[in-house]
Amino acid sequence: MLQAHEGSRNDVAALMAEIGRRARAAARPLALASAERKHAALVGMAQAVARQEQAILAANALDMANGEEAGLSPAMLDRLKLDSGRIRAIADGIRAIAELKDPIGEIIAEWDRPNGLHIERVRTPLGVIGVIYESRPNVTADAGALCLKAGNAVILRGGSDSLNSSQAIHACLVEGLKSAGLPGDAIQLVPTTNRAAVGEMLTGLSGNLDVIVPRGGKSLVGRVQTEARVPVFAHLEGICHLYIDRSADLDMAVTIAVNAKMRRTGICGSAETLLVDHAVKDTHLLPILAALDAAGCEIRAEDEVRAVFGQAKPANEDDWSTEYLDAIISVKLVDGVSGAIDHIERYSSHHTEAIVADDAATAERFFNEIDSAILLHNASTQFADGGEFGMGAEIGIATGRMHARGPVGVEQLTSFKYRVRGAGQVRP
Amino acid sequence: MLQAHEGSRNDVAALMAEIGRRARAAARPLALASAERKHAALVGMAQAVARQEQAILAANALDMANGEEAGLSPAMLDRLKLDSGRIRAIADGIRAIAELKDPIGEIIAEWDRPNGLHIERVRTPLGVIGVIYESRPNVTADAGALCLKAGNAVILRGGSDSLNSSQAIHACLVEGLKSAGLPGDAIQLVPTTNRAAVGEMLTGLSGNLDVIVPRGGKSLVGRVQTEARVPVFAHLEGICHLYIDRSADLDMAVTIAVNAKMRRTGICGSAETLLVDHAVKDTHLLPILAALDAAGCEIRAEDEVRAVFGQAKPANEDDWSTEYLDAIISVKLVDGVSGAIDHIERYSSHHTEAIVADDAATAERFFNEIDSAILLHNASTQFADGGEFGMGAEIGIATGRMHARGPVGVEQLTSFKYRVRGAGQVRP
Repeated sequence: MLQAHEGSRNDVAALMAEIGRRARAAARPLALASAERKHAALVGMAQAVARQEQAILAANALDMANGEEAGLSPAMLDRLKLDSGRIRAIADGIRAIAELKDPIGEIIAEWDRPNGLHIERVRTPLGVIGVIYESRPNVTADAGALCLKAGNAVILRGGSDSLNSSQAIHACLVEGLKSAGLPGDAIQLVPTTNRAAVGEMLTGLSGNLDVIVPRGGKSLVGRVQTEARVPVFAHLEGICHLYIDRSADLDMAVTIAVNAKMRRTGICGSAETLLVDHAVKDTHLLPILAALDAAGCEIRAEDEVRAVFGQAKPANEDDWSTEYLDAIISVKLVDGVSGAIDHIERYSSHHTEAIVADDAATAERFFNEIDSAILLHNASTQFADGGEFGMGAEIGIATGRMHARGPVGVEQLTSFKYRVRGAGQVRP
Repeated sequence: MLQAHEGSRNDVAALMAEIGRRARAAARPLALASAERKHAALVGMAQAVARQEQAILAANALDMANGEEAGLSPAMLDRLKLDSGRIRAIADGIRAIAELKDPIGEIIAEWDRPNGLHIERVRTPLGVIGVIYESRPNVTADAGALCLKAGNAVILRGGSDSLNSSQAIHACLVEGLKSAGLPGDAIQLVPTTNRAAVGEMLTGLSGNLDVIVPRGGKSLVGRVQTEARVPVFAHLEGICHLYIDRSADLDMAVTIAVNAKMRRTGICGSAETLLVDHAVKDTHLLPILAALDAAGCEIRAEDEVRAVFGQAKPANEDDWSTEYLDAIISVKLVDGVSGAIDHIERYSSHHTEAIVADDAATAERFFNEIDSAILLHNASTQFADGGEFGMGAEIGIATGRMHARGPVGVEQLTSFKYRVRGAGQVRP
């Protein structure tokens, strides 16, 4: 690994340029590596993580001590903290990625032409992926392993809070790569906490970085989306909506509403706004709000809703575009599915929206007219997750419309090329 | 249509911002438009082009007169010129796009989860596409029609030389849109020749432009690739290689070499460098070069080749990275497929490469180890074309690895979303 620099901006630029060149150089042998070799490397990584538990814990103790001294919040310290169980989960996560189907070389489509040419579209790696994340050290392993499975080199830039933990985990990843005869530069961890390193990545490292995946809070993602000169797979926020139609089964609506909001409030697929069809104001609204309230959820609503459920706080305009990531939900009555679609098109972050309805045509309309990455009918928004989609691990969820959308798993980290087989054909 | 402005940079910025807002507003009804409606609009466009032949010719005569006065080269004037045959070809091109399968709503993949959720990945439009092109007025129709077929709004910025012709064609496109009840703003033509308009498009029009497709020479494409803040589908150049392996059939090698270089020398899929396996220097080299020479091709080669074919001019280092787009080819002897792969990885623009070989394992290696958009075995590089691939019309060929690669047809101008159907599932 390159030595950590804490020097000038020029030093950081030179360091990052070198990291970019090394990543690009590693990308070619990686693209040509067999499925067996990548599998062996991943298994080797998982074994190394398990074997190095004490070293990882020691590095993490250093980060925790620094973090406490720096006054990190309890939530941030919890994200940073590793223990035996979490290290086991990291190793298990790498093993799960090892067992995914290798996407590279897969024939995505093939067809014949009238002149006898046979055309195949075949999956290839994307190249070099940059991952910029914050305090969770497990992202080092997850992102490194997932990029490798798709045949990509990766440049990891973790949070400064977790640098020691990430370096200890990264050493295990490199050990796995080398044990399988793959270049250690396939997974590089930026060895400096200097923030200029992020700026260098956003420029694309002179063409040596093909895509950036930011993992973290809104300010990180927003900066990356605004400043990156290379494509970005990300979602800025998940302002997810749940719409209860007049045709909804009441029990189902209650169950899904409580799950969509309260199962885990801090994930991007958690519902932030509940839209209820005006036509079922008298039957559905109160039981749903009472159930949310009983589950510990704060309700912010317009006056007409508050007239039905007095405990609700008043909602203001900002509430419709706020991702609470907390046990708070904004509630609004709308005029049927049209009203729901209008509200969602205006306020949604195009991440995930769900409808509860028995009427199939209404659900179809919701599906057709809303342009969000994930739409669900009679299911909780909390299914917005690569694992729940059966894709295995994901590096995040993207709300853009280019290349990857929705859960970004191993397949979404690939590109393709065409292979054309002939028998001497020339073009007339 | 908005009035043409020849005013200040601020005027152009305001004009382009308004064009962007209109395009985004048109994108939604367009995304929801039925296949039948889009088909009707395209048929209406083709009819309008045929009906307005005289108006288009009159506008073109104006452009031609201006072009002659401005001293455009004969080649540029030829690109600019329209006649009855070319106008018929434009109308036929739109009709062919009308008859393509509508990609929107197509279910690309679907699967069931163990919990009973049914997941579909369904094709959606990309949004708003910007096309920046030079003097060929037919691009106005081709690009406008293709973007519409995929449900996208499009902002067309043609060359100033062809503005009158493009405006006349654009009027026909708008007529077709309106005749089918689609918004005229779905296809907008930038009504100013002020170059600042391109700069505004490159910034992404405040999020109202999702992707840019440059169509034209290297300086245009280079500027767009360097400066665009939104994704770009393009190829900077097509430095395409043809490799003749030791296992090549000689007759096939000769035929493919002449076709790959000489069928049309000005297209991006034309071969620019011929690599010949050293092992067949004594059998294959001379017949291939003699045939190229007889077809009128200038040969630039290293000394060892010139010793075999004395008419060849000496090649210098620049020749290996030059896209001649002319009847010139650079020729080099390489050590088998390994040598060919090494040369191609170093000099290729990752557009299209072909191998002539009887040995299947050698061709496989060429296919696997070269990361270009299109690879061909025993076929001419001139098949690098969306039409030849059976995709119908193409808006260009992309060499990037993000989203679209190779021919960019109607499918490549789409995105996707997920539709998930449940029966009340919540996440445990």
